[in-house]
Amino acid sequence: VVTIDPDRLLTDLRRLRRFGAVDQGVVRQSLTPIDLEARDWLRRRMADAGLDATIDGVGNVIGRSPTDGPALLIGSHADTQPTGGWLDGALGVIYGLEIARAFIQRTDGPPLAVDAVAWVDEEGTFGSCLGSRSYCGLTTSDELATAKNADGVTLTEAWRAAGLDGVAARPEPGRYRGYLEAHIEQGASLERDGNQIGVVTEIVGSRNIAIGFLGQQNHAGTTPMHLRRDAATALVELAHTINLEFRRLAGSATVWTIGRMTVAPGAASIIPGTAEMHLQFRDPDLGRLETLEAVTLQLIDDANADGVVDVTATPSIAPVNPTKLDEELASHLAAAAEQVAGSRWVAMPSAAVHDAMFLAEVMPAAMLFVPSIGGISHDFAENTRDEDIVLGCEALAAAAESILRGEPTAG
Amino acid sequence: VVTIDPDRLLTDLRRLRRFGAVDQGVVRQSLTPIDLEARDWLRRRMADAGLDATIDGVGNVIGRSPTDGPALLIGSHADTQPTGGWLDGALGVIYGLEIARAFIQRTDGPPLAVDAVAWVDEEGTFGSCLGSRSYCGLTTSDELATAKNADGVTLTEAWRAAGLDGVAARPEPGRYRGYLEAHIEQGASLERDGNQIGVVTEIVGSRNIAIGFLGQQNHAGTTPMHLRRDAATALVELAHTINLEFRRLAGSATVWTIGRMTVAPGAASIIPGTAEMHLQFRDPDLGRLETLEAVTLQLIDDANADGVVDVTATPSIAPVNPTKLDEELASHLAAAAEQVAGSRWVAMPSAAVHDAMFLAEVMPAAMLFVPSIGGISHDFAENTRDEDIVLGCEALAAAAESILRGEPTAG
Repeated sequence: VVTIDPDRLLTDLRRLRRFGAVDQGVVRQSLTPIDLEARDWLRRRMADAGLDATIDGVGNVIGRSPTDGPALLIGSHADTQPTGGWLDGALGVIYGLEIARAFIQRTDGPPLAVDAVAWVDEEGTFGSCLGSRSYCGLTTSDELATAKNADGVTLTEAWRAAGLDGVAARPEPGRYRGYLEAHIEQGASLERDGNQIGVVTEIVGSRNIAIGFLGQQNHAGTTPMHLRRDAATALVELAHTINLEFRRLAGSATVWTIGRMTVAPGAASIIPGTAEMHLQFRDPDLGRLETLEAVTLQLIDDANADGVVDVTATPSIAPVNPTKLDEELASHLAAAAEQVAGSRWVAMPSAAVHDAMFLAEVMPAAMLFVPSIGGISHDFAENTRDEDIVLGCEALAAAAESILRGEPTAG
Repeated sequence: VVTIDPDRLLTDLRRLRRFGAVDQGVVRQSLTPIDLEARDWLRRRMADAGLDATIDGVGNVIGRSPTDGPALLIGSHADTQPTGGWLDGALGVIYGLEIARAFIQRTDGPPLAVDAVAWVDEEGTFGSCLGSRSYCGLTTSDELATAKNADGVTLTEAWRAAGLDGVAARPEPGRYRGYLEAHIEQGASLERDGNQIGVVTEIVGSRNIAIGFLGQQNHAGTTPMHLRRDAATALVELAHTINLEFRRLAGSATVWTIGRMTVAPGAASIIPGTAEMHLQFRDPDLGRLETLEAVTLQLIDDANADGVVDVTATPSIAPVNPTKLDEELASHLAAAAEQVAGSRWVAMPSAAVHDAMFLAEVMPAAMLFVPSIGGISHDFAENTRDEDIVLGCEALAAAAESILRGEPTAG
């Protein structure tokens, strides 16, 4: 079987960290000068490995194996959050590089084709999963024309400054058996249960609803309770009822969050006239996601029916439906995990969005997780034990080989 | 009986509005140049009426009747909120001027002494009820040394700029039979029930508690519900429980308000790590106020007991206990109200703080309310019908006469 080089893997991972390193973390947002430097370094590392390496017109770095297909595309994203960890994205990118390199350099066994990829802008500096969606043909011209970063720089300007023409590479017809992506878990469940590998079965969907409350601002001393139209009380009571109902309807993987809550004018002696809260919920099951959405809208209708405060609901982020990952690819990942980690692996949903969601629309796609220490991510402190980093790459390489050889799995 | 002059009353009230007029409202915050101009005008109007008029060292305008005591002190405050109405304070000030003037100018009946007063800074630009508390000896040197307005100007600087030495006038020993203050209701109950006068029996007390929540900020997708320490959820559930318990314990005059609510960092996909809310409650009954306070602290203890989120309580504004107004003075006001308004008056508590609360500590004090159109106050739209303005002044003048004559009342 193919053998990856643990030292080379960890060395390249640490080299990639140097582009934008701050303490243990990394600041390397999409299409910034340091991100473009990192992409050029990745292109050169892929070329050094014997891949035909290019940066496409949107910023994706793609290293094509000289071997004929069927091929696997393996990678993740190279950009980070504004104050990011060193592994979120980078881990999967260097796994792709290392595995493609291992297949080219092996001298035993048949030639097998693994192409490596480093997507641009998964973190949404200009648009969430922009690179992978561009590759899959899932962006709209309207979105691209209006996209801006937090500083107001347009995507068009950023591409021009980077010498990019905005035209993405597209999947080479007939070449791909599928897409594999490794990622840190960004949660604490692998660590908590003593597992070293997670085989991702699906990526959860989400709904985001901004809920507005319009009451009547008034004097907090002289307005009796029965005459109040208090926007803050309406918010509290609706949030409480949502918590009750969601607890009743939730599955084991359902999560919901009221991450934003504001009342105005926000003074001790004034009854708030307006309020707003943001409700987000995620679930791997589309049916449950739709039930939770319907229940939320019904509770808002009920709150409106009493007529005291006007309550409105606005979808604040486009709905994302759950993505079922490819079962056959996942069964290869499971067999490989069993092979390298014994019983210390588990099948699990991904609670976060990943590039694999969009790849799954154009080819079979699967994902593998490694543990996040303390469940921390999107933070300079994000980390994974070296042993787990190496083990995850070994599992992904073994799965790639069994997929490309067309070996049957127990699953 | 003494007769007030309705035209003169309304004319002076409208003249006072011109100092700081914006549309129908007034912007005349304490110790600003326009407030000082208004005070100087008031001093001159009092002098024109035959009163011995002075501005004391804190900014109170006091017009002393040349008649010997026993005297009544009648007035209210001349300052406004940052965007204030034209009657809040001003009404009671011009009533004091008009009634003192009417008693000096009358030719029938015995000479009776009414002194007029216009307190400074009831609205708390530098400190709530600063002028009346200074007059009553209820300020602390520490408070005066540190007081600032919203622009960071210290009270000491403001006094110096106004040519004031910071030393308040004090009640002339043995002179006063009591203090009378008229004010707009700042609520809608008189208007709603078709009453023209309210005789205030007591001023409610209040408690203000800032409640802080410390949980753990985390990823809203990858953190399962049972591992969350969500500060926003803790806030919602405590606020809901407070609403339930307070509804059970409330009397007809109890009010409570959560006027401020913040969660941090306030992003859709991040579980809030910290949150804060401000709870205020008011009640005319000290026992109930203390029960509500004890229940709030118990609910906070209960919320802490589950250990998920740390909850802390901090009194954010000094506690104010309810003030019982003088029953004998109130019975004169009631008799006068009956005389001018027939059955269209009612005995009622005041839900807002007034200068009379502090005067009540040094002499018998009573208050009279006139209706607020639509219950609106602290707003440019604040208003009262001319007919009600005149009627209120007639009632207050009649009560002043019967008090000073020492007439018995039915009550």
